[in-house]
Amino acid sequence: MGIANTPEPPYTAVIFTSLRTEGDHGYAHMSESMEQLAAEQPGYLGIEYARDPGSGITVSYWADEAAAVAWKQVAAHLIAQERGREVWYADYRVRVCTVNRDYGPGGGGVHP
Amino acid sequence: MGIANTPEPPYTAVIFTSLRTEGDHGYAHMSESMEQLAAEQPGYLGIEYARDPGSGITVSYWADEAAAVAWKQVAAHLIAQERGREVWYADYRVRVCTVNRDYGPGGGGVHP
Repeated sequence: MGIANTPEPPYTAVIFTSLRTEGDHGYAHMSESMEQLAAEQPGYLGIEYARDPGSGITVSYWADEAAAVAWKQVAAHLIAQERGREVWYADYRVRVCTVNRDYGPGGGGVHP
Repeated sequence: MGIANTPEPPYTAVIFTSLRTEGDHGYAHMSESMEQLAAEQPGYLGIEYARDPGSGITVSYWADEAAAVAWKQVAAHLIAQERGREVWYADYRVRVCTVNRDYGPGGGGVHP
């Protein structure tokens, strides 16, 4: 995974934190499909994720909240097509945020 | 890791995404110290993290942006005391956000 090359704030972040059930049950395949599909959506800025064996955090970045909400509909549809969310996740939390400031090793203001 | 038991929004999230250098170099120890220290700070609401071998995402939650900024000073001090940030991170990005909405498997509104 790389660090998302997001533009100057404000923009929208959707933090998805999950506790996984045991076993794959098609999760890796679904996860890959989701990432590819996200990248095709209007307002998509980037995605970052890290996964432990039992839990994971995915943060997707969007131009505004409307783009994030539109993606939610698409994602929910995909999940419904494949398998129930309950097959993969013991628990999860979605947080929709406005990013106000960001910075890296060189300080703030490094944007494409 | 568990899912942070955050209160009803709005609150502040600090998303820390990092690409790690190779080897531990005291990282695991620092990381544990940081978590314990964070939990003692005023305005601390919770922390979530997931780590791949090469990258990681840590999200800390705070009552407001002032609490998050205060924590940044403490964290920077600890890192300076231990080892240079450049020993652990090939690259990183910090994003300071306002959480506007959140929900879980049962929908929104499940807060302590």
